[in-house]
Amino acid sequence: MEIILKNCSCILTQDAKRSTLSNRDILISDGKIAEIGQNLSRSGYVIDCKNKLAMPGLINTHNHLAMTLFKGYGDDMPLDKWLKEKIWPAEQKLNAEAVYNGTMLAFAEMIRSGTTTFNDMYFFSESIVDATINAGMRGFASYPTIDHNNPEKTDSEIRNVKSFLSYLASKNTGLVKPMVAPHAPYTCSRELLERSKELALKHNIGLHIHVSETVKEVNDSIRDKDMRPVEYLESIGFLGPEVIMAHSCHFSKEEIVLAAKRGAKISHNPTSNMKLAGGSMQLKEFLDAGILVSLGTDGSASNNSLDMFNEMKVCALLHKFSNNNPEIASAQQVFDIATRGGAKVLGLEKDIGAIEIDKQADIVLINLKDISMIPNHNPISNIVYSANGSCVDTTIVNGKILMENRILKTIDEEEVTDKVNEFASTLV
Amino acid sequence: MEIILKNCSCILTQDAKRSTLSNRDILISDGKIAEIGQNLSRSGYVIDCKNKLAMPGLINTHNHLAMTLFKGYGDDMPLDKWLKEKIWPAEQKLNAEAVYNGTMLAFAEMIRSGTTTFNDMYFFSESIVDATINAGMRGFASYPTIDHNNPEKTDSEIRNVKSFLSYLASKNTGLVKPMVAPHAPYTCSRELLERSKELALKHNIGLHIHVSETVKEVNDSIRDKDMRPVEYLESIGFLGPEVIMAHSCHFSKEEIVLAAKRGAKISHNPTSNMKLAGGSMQLKEFLDAGILVSLGTDGSASNNSLDMFNEMKVCALLHKFSNNNPEIASAQQVFDIATRGGAKVLGLEKDIGAIEIDKQADIVLINLKDISMIPNHNPISNIVYSANGSCVDTTIVNGKILMENRILKTIDEEEVTDKVNEFASTLV
Repeated sequence: MEIILKNCSCILTQDAKRSTLSNRDILISDGKIAEIGQNLSRSGYVIDCKNKLAMPGLINTHNHLAMTLFKGYGDDMPLDKWLKEKIWPAEQKLNAEAVYNGTMLAFAEMIRSGTTTFNDMYFFSESIVDATINAGMRGFASYPTIDHNNPEKTDSEIRNVKSFLSYLASKNTGLVKPMVAPHAPYTCSRELLERSKELALKHNIGLHIHVSETVKEVNDSIRDKDMRPVEYLESIGFLGPEVIMAHSCHFSKEEIVLAAKRGAKISHNPTSNMKLAGGSMQLKEFLDAGILVSLGTDGSASNNSLDMFNEMKVCALLHKFSNNNPEIASAQQVFDIATRGGAKVLGLEKDIGAIEIDKQADIVLINLKDISMIPNHNPISNIVYSANGSCVDTTIVNGKILMENRILKTIDEEEVTDKVNEFASTLV
Repeated sequence: MEIILKNCSCILTQDAKRSTLSNRDILISDGKIAEIGQNLSRSGYVIDCKNKLAMPGLINTHNHLAMTLFKGYGDDMPLDKWLKEKIWPAEQKLNAEAVYNGTMLAFAEMIRSGTTTFNDMYFFSESIVDATINAGMRGFASYPTIDHNNPEKTDSEIRNVKSFLSYLASKNTGLVKPMVAPHAPYTCSRELLERSKELALKHNIGLHIHVSETVKEVNDSIRDKDMRPVEYLESIGFLGPEVIMAHSCHFSKEEIVLAAKRGAKISHNPTSNMKLAGGSMQLKEFLDAGILVSLGTDGSASNNSLDMFNEMKVCALLHKFSNNNPEIASAQQVFDIATRGGAKVLGLEKDIGAIEIDKQADIVLINLKDISMIPNHNPISNIVYSANGSCVDTTIVNGKILMENRILKTIDEEEVTDKVNEFASTLV
C-alpha cells in the first residue's frame, strides 16, 4: 500500500546534515520512503499533515518489555533488595500468556509515545516475537541467560537460546530479529559468556548484556576476578562491535578506551540508573572516545515509563547537572542519540533513524497544536524539553500505520489491559 | 452549583493519615468539599467517576507563567548568558496583552496536567490577575522588583508594587492573592529588600524571592557582602515565615539552620536547576531541619514544561541519584511535597492540599484506563513514576470545572495559541 503524508508542516529528517524541510509530502511505498517533495500526487492513503511534524521513530535500545506487569510493584528500593525481594519472586509466576500481554501493553505505550524500534531481553521470548509480529513493531528479542556458575544450567541455557533462535527463524519475519543475551558478567559463568559470543558470531547477530550498572557489581568483580567488568569481558575475548552494553555507569578511563577499541556499543538508561541510584554513565567521555551511544528506558519496573520523550529530557538534565555544564547534552545531541544513535547501535543505520529516501518508513507525526509545541521557536527543543509522548498523533512502522489520531490500529488496548490486570491480581 | 463526583474508584485524600478510599462519592457544594460517602443522592451536576482516581490538585509554587512565550527560545546555555543574551532582550518586547496570553497558555497547560494552584512572579502583573480570574485558577501573583542598587529605581519599583496591590484589591477576588516579590538578593538593593519586607508585613502577605540558585551568586555575595545570601537576608531582618525562597540550591549547614529557625519556606525547582546546571537543593537536609518544602516548575523557558507529574518524577530521580540512595524521595514523599507541601508553603493548608470535608474543592480526576496507570499495583507510584499530565481527565478549582474529558471549559485554546504565536513571531 502507498501512503502519502501530505503537506507536512515540518520534517525533521535527521539526515547527515540534520536538514529540516517545510511543507513537503512524504510518499511511502512498499514499507519504504519512496519520495519526499512538493505536490506528490499519487493514489494511496492520504494523511493530511498540516500542523503536523514528521520525525523518525524513536529507538529504545534496552528493554524488558513485559515488566509492565510489575510497574509500581516495588519502588524506592536498592537494586539488590528490589530484585531479590520483589522482582525475582514475582517473575516465578510468569507464563507465556502473561509475557505476551505485558509486552503488548508495552507496545501500546511505546506506539502512543512515538517509539518504533525496541531491543528486548526477557523470559518466554517466543511470546515477545509473537507480540511483535501482531503489533507490527520493529525490534530485537532475546532470551536472557543466567547460570550463576552452575555448569548444568549453562548447558540448559544455551539450549534455550538455540531453541529460541530456531523459533524466531521459523517465523520468517524481517521486523523482529534475535540477539543473544547473557544477562550480565556477574550472573553468567565465563563459559556461558564464551558460548554466547560463539553463537552470536555464528549467526551474525548482536550480544545484549548488562554491564557495570552498580558500584557493587564493579567492586564484586574486582574482588572475585581481580578485574573490573569491562576488563574481564576483554580478557575473555567477549568485546566486539556486535556487543551492546546496557547501563555502563561505572567504566574506568581504561575501560572506555577498551570499549572504543573493540567497537562495543552502549545503551544509556538514565532514568533507571537515577531511580535505582546506580550512578551515571559518562556521556561526554563516551562520545569523545567515539563510542556509539543510544538511549533506552529499561523495564517499566525500574523507570516506570517507556516514553522516550521523557527519557530524552532526563538524559539531558542528568548530564547538564552532573557535569555542572548546561551546554552538555544539547537538545539536538540527545535527539540524535534517540534516533540516529539507536539505529547505529542496533546496526540498522542503513534502514532506520532518519527520514530519507529508501530508508524504511518508521515515521512519527507530532501534533503541532499540542500545547507542548507552542510556540514553535525550536521544534527540537520542544520535543526534548517541553513535550511528552502524548504529542504524538500518528505512528508508522515499516510503512504500516500502527496509530492514527491516537487510535491504535493493531492492539486491542481494552483486552490487553484486562489481561494484564488479571495477571497483576495474582501477585498480591 | 453542586457537583457530585459519583463512585470514584479511588480517592487519594492526602489527609493527615494519607487515607485511600474506594468507591466513594464526593459532593461539592459552594466551592467546597461538602460530603464524602457512598450513594450520596443529591441533585447537581454528576460526573461518573468509575475508573477514575480523585486526588488533590497539584500546587506549583514557583512560576514565571508568561515565559511560555519564550519556550525553546534559548536552551543549553549558562544562566548568566541565557538571561543576558536571550531572555532580557526578549522581555523588552513584552506588553500587557502578550503577558495575558502567555499566562493563559500556561494555565491551559497546567489545567491539562492537573495543577490547580500557582505562585507567579512576572511583569505586567495586572495581566496575570486578569488571566487568573478568567481562567478560574487559584494562585498568587506578584510584580518582580529589580533595582540593581539604583535608588531612583528603588522608589519606582516600590510604587509599581503598591499600584499592583491596589489593582488586585480592586478586583475583590479570593482566588488570586498577591505576594511581594523582590527578585533576588543580588538584583535588589538592601533598601528594596527592606521596603519589600515592610510592605509584606503591612499587608500580611507573602514574600517570594529567588535565593542561591547558582554557585556564582553565592560567590558574588561572599565577595561583595562577606556573607552568603541567606546569612545576608538574616542580617537585614528579611527572613520570616512569610518568605518563600525559590531554588535554594546552595545553602550551607548554617543557612539551613537559619531558614528553619525563621520558618522561611522553600520552592524546590529540580528540572530548572538541572537544565541550567545550577545545582541541587538538599531535600533530605531541608526536611530533616523541619523546613517546609514545596515543588515548582519555574518558567517554561528554563524547564520547559509546566507538567507537575514530570516535576515530581525529576524530583525523586534527582535526590535518589545525588544521594546514592534509592530510598530517598519516595513516591509518597514527593506526592506529599506537590500537594500538602505546596499548600503549607503558600499558607493555604486549611483550604487546599487534601480531599477533606470543608476544604476548597480543588480536585483532579485521573483516568485509570490510561496506560500509565495500568496495572494498578500502587497508584501513587504510577502517578509519580509512570504518568505524565495527559492522564488527567478532569480538573476542578474551587468547585468549578475547568476541564472535563480533557476539554477546557474556561480557555479558548485556539485563540490563545494564535495570539502567542503572533507574539513569538515578533522575537525572530
